[in-house]
Amino acid sequence: MSAKEYTEDHRIVYYESDDTGHLTIAMLINLLVLVSDDQSNQLGMDTAFVNSLGVGWVVTQYHLQVTRRPKTGEVVTLKTKATAYNRYFAYREYWLLDAQGDTLAYAEGIWVTMSYATRKIATIPEELMTPYESEKTGKLPRLPRPERLDTAATVRTQPYTVRYFDIDNNGHVNNAHYFDWLLDTLPADFLRHHEPTDIRIRFENEVQYGHQVASEVVQHDLTTQHQIKLGATIAALATVTWRKA
Amino acid sequence: MSAKEYTEDHRIVYYESDDTGHLTIAMLINLLVLVSDDQSNQLGMDTAFVNSLGVGWVVTQYHLQVTRRPKTGEVVTLKTKATAYNRYFAYREYWLLDAQGDTLAYAEGIWVTMSYATRKIATIPEELMTPYESEKTGKLPRLPRPERLDTAATVRTQPYTVRYFDIDNNGHVNNAHYFDWLLDTLPADFLRHHEPTDIRIRFENEVQYGHQVASEVVQHDLTTQHQIKLGATIAALATVTWRKA
Repeated sequence: MSAKEYTEDHRIVYYESDDTGHLTIAMLINLLVLVSDDQSNQLGMDTAFVNSLGVGWVVTQYHLQVTRRPKTGEVVTLKTKATAYNRYFAYREYWLLDAQGDTLAYAEGIWVTMSYATRKIATIPEELMTPYESEKTGKLPRLPRPERLDTAATVRTQPYTVRYFDIDNNGHVNNAHYFDWLLDTLPADFLRHHEPTDIRIRFENEVQYGHQVASEVVQHDLTTQHQIKLGATIAALATVTWRKA
Repeated sequence: MSAKEYTEDHRIVYYESDDTGHLTIAMLINLLVLVSDDQSNQLGMDTAFVNSLGVGWVVTQYHLQVTRRPKTGEVVTLKTKATAYNRYFAYREYWLLDAQGDTLAYAEGIWVTMSYATRKIATIPEELMTPYESEKTGKLPRLPRPERLDTAATVRTQPYTVRYFDIDNNGHVNNAHYFDWLLDTLPADFLRHHEPTDIRIRFENEVQYGHQVASEVVQHDLTTQHQIKLGATIAALATVTWRKA
């Protein structure tokens, strides 16, 4: 049995694009969350219902493979399924398809349920997975981890303050903003003339409204290693592989 | 003769909303630009054509009146027309309507054409206005101006750096980001429990990638006066009137 697929169309608009006129990575992340939210709402698994079980969904890791970023005006199809899960982790897949059905981007995410009472990872309630026809399995795919920063190399750092408008309706910082902080440390000229092909990110600790974070980057030719630090704590770790545009 | 109206539907999604689950003012500005861009493209007046005449459109002023900010998931109708123009200024109107056709927000904007050669305001080329059936008039409506900051009052200031992802495809800072800088200076608690009803903004000088701006605010009960400064230069001036939510 395979998990239920859910698809929807989306037109890329100018405020979802960067100065080259292509969808930003932050907005790509927003679209992944949008299509999975829409599937959840369709299945009656909205946030209010999830919260009524005393838990909330939190993403811990993404792996994105990007073939081509769509352009402003392009209509793309977003596709997702909640492929598989075990006691503590749910594995979700996502596709961004062009009008011909070719894959523009493929992503995998690992999600956990956090208990409101304990603030810790909770066993995933069965009734949260049943409607997706997600497969319960012992062997969940493992996503490739981002690298630790090469501390022997030159680290560039930029400070960012978490703004009010970075916070979602759930009171947490929208994860997509991490990508604005991560990638903004790279020179504009590099961003204009290179395309990300592979992105690995792990969210390790939450940041909150008003926090000042440091976005650190080490660049090795076509690989960039990133971390978001809150004081001495790592909030997120990411590795991006690039190609010349 | 009345100018051609253009409408389109738009679903408000979570990444266009703040932590109360309502469309942000920055995103409202993005939607105004989106619907007028879409009308322009439909009429063959796309950016490439405008630029081929040696000019570019620049907004100088907005006046927004907000009855209710739509919620995440709500489908709204965006409506606009290029109502009237004279030698140097074009006056455009915008509406945000709910599913019942009631007005959620009404906005007016004043646009000018800037010459690429002189970097100054240019006479608006007639062929840019004809397709909109915009009325040529000596008497263009004047938008209410924002107030100068009351310098006797306490001014709160916060610094913001213009990020790579703040820049549009036209190489300029997307004006919507000014609202993130302007409103983020207000306490989260105020933003959560108050709704903007009237917003006046004038864009006076351009800011660019890498610039550090200061967002200044003076608060008088339910009126907030704002300015964005680049050193001693005022980049934008705004006044917002609020009601208790």
